[in-house]
Amino acid sequence: MTRPHLLRQVTVIGCGLIGTSIALDLTRAGIAVRLTDRDPAAVAQAAARGAGTPLTLLDRAADLVVVAVPPSAVADTVYEAQARGLGRAFTDVAGTKGLIAEEAELRGCDLRGYVPGHPMAGRETSGPAAAEPGMFAGRPWILCPGPCVPPEAEAAVRELVRLCGAEPRTMSPEAHDEAVATVSHTPQLVAAALAAQLADTAPEVLALAGGGLRDTTRIAASDAGLWTDILGHNAEAVAARVDRVAADLALLAEELRNGGSTGSVTVGALLLRGNLGRAALTGATGSRNPGDAPSRARV
Amino acid sequence: MTRPHLLRQVTVIGCGLIGTSIALDLTRAGIAVRLTDRDPAAVAQAAARGAGTPLTLLDRAADLVVVAVPPSAVADTVYEAQARGLGRAFTDVAGTKGLIAEEAELRGCDLRGYVPGHPMAGRETSGPAAAEPGMFAGRPWILCPGPCVPPEAEAAVRELVRLCGAEPRTMSPEAHDEAVATVSHTPQLVAAALAAQLADTAPEVLALAGGGLRDTTRIAASDAGLWTDILGHNAEAVAARVDRVAADLALLAEELRNGGSTGSVTVGALLLRGNLGRAALTGATGSRNPGDAPSRARV
Repeated sequence: MTRPHLLRQVTVIGCGLIGTSIALDLTRAGIAVRLTDRDPAAVAQAAARGAGTPLTLLDRAADLVVVAVPPSAVADTVYEAQARGLGRAFTDVAGTKGLIAEEAELRGCDLRGYVPGHPMAGRETSGPAAAEPGMFAGRPWILCPGPCVPPEAEAAVRELVRLCGAEPRTMSPEAHDEAVATVSHTPQLVAAALAAQLADTAPEVLALAGGGLRDTTRIAASDAGLWTDILGHNAEAVAARVDRVAADLALLAEELRNGGSTGSVTVGALLLRGNLGRAALTGATGSRNPGDAPSRARV
Repeated sequence: MTRPHLLRQVTVIGCGLIGTSIALDLTRAGIAVRLTDRDPAAVAQAAARGAGTPLTLLDRAADLVVVAVPPSAVADTVYEAQARGLGRAFTDVAGTKGLIAEEAELRGCDLRGYVPGHPMAGRETSGPAAAEPGMFAGRPWILCPGPCVPPEAEAAVRELVRLCGAEPRTMSPEAHDEAVATVSHTPQLVAAALAAQLADTAPEVLALAGGGLRDTTRIAASDAGLWTDILGHNAEAVAARVDRVAADLALLAEELRNGGSTGSVTVGALLLRGNLGRAALTGATGSRNPGDAPSRARV
């Protein structure tokens, strides 16, 4: 990894899973990282993990401020950080982009210094204890720079992406939100709806479960508060997709109840479409995803 | 592993994923395994993998016949195998049990020699090439012996389970079917419905996907024909559960569209129920499932 040129000091606001993981990568790259969070315990925990040192009033303006807070808090946090002169360039890591861009403009953020971003990696666990260096290595990191962002601000954020080992991709906020509705937000809600059915299932029944149920529900362990915020920020795009899944499932249930050859045709056709969709996914993600080796599932 | 006492020769009918995996375990335990399948190529492939030798007309009756065919073919296959005197005891490995028991009785199978079974393991891949020894190690293997099964027939099947390293559990066919509707069949349909939405998604969007979408759709790659058969054989129990998931998803989509605090409350409550369900699952399956270490997902 080549030495950073633009980033010598970075401030990370929000010491959760993503913020702390970014801070760990930057610290290891030799960057001076300052940490802050509305929860002092999170700062202490991240600092103890070697992610940086607590931000103080004496710190000079950072080369870049990474705002790693939930979507609904991004615009306010960017505004206040800019008002306090905490840095020269700003980015965020939230999982939605369109509504935040509108909020940032309405709030009066300086859009010339703000390059919205979204590193496409994470975990179903949360908090600084779950953070790890290298979390973003090889993953896409979407950037949505507005029309008035100067080259030096975008370059600073691109250096952040590079130092985390991720691959920058530029998209419009709208294209981002449509894409993540498909590949992230809808699977999140579907996994949650599936796992929700298990809450009142007898343990001796759950004990029979294998890899199939385990994998389909893994992300249902994710932070409910954070995800309520994310989904509310991308409501239309998610709702349209969730409606399609719900309609398919309702039709399948109906046809299964009717039985006979019509039911088989409907069920078989959906399963074949599922085969096609899964093949499209593995084809598009290719060998970049090491977890695709066949593993044990339920038959 | 102690030496087998009851099983010296076993015939496996159906050289797919499950039949061949069982045959590999038995061969390694020193049992003489005979293989047959309506597809001679599958027999040849399983035999080439060391799973046994092709069944011939000269073979004497086996100590146990393992019928490893799709649910709708089990009763006929057991009947014919019994009529031809292929063995002294019979079992199957199908993922449903209630309807097969009825069919076996109607078909005139000798229910004294037949102990229905279901090893709770598998993969999203299929065929003899995907088989592997040890697939059932540590997994539950459900047995549904009828009231008139003599001890020696059940003992033969229990020895099979033991030789495959699995843990036998006795249940009624009805209890089995309700349980697998929850832990296996419903997740299968939900994963397929989710993956089906990806079939016409642009590759550059799919390329953004991470571990979350990959895991939630993995089992959607499973054999569509086999699963159409399985789901049709457990239609009522599956339909009831799929209906609940569909209703939850439809409500969520509606509330997301309405927005505001009502939507947040509904979405947040579902995500919390998902947290609870996932916690119940990991609590019930415990450390038996090595795949539960936190892995990278999409945030």
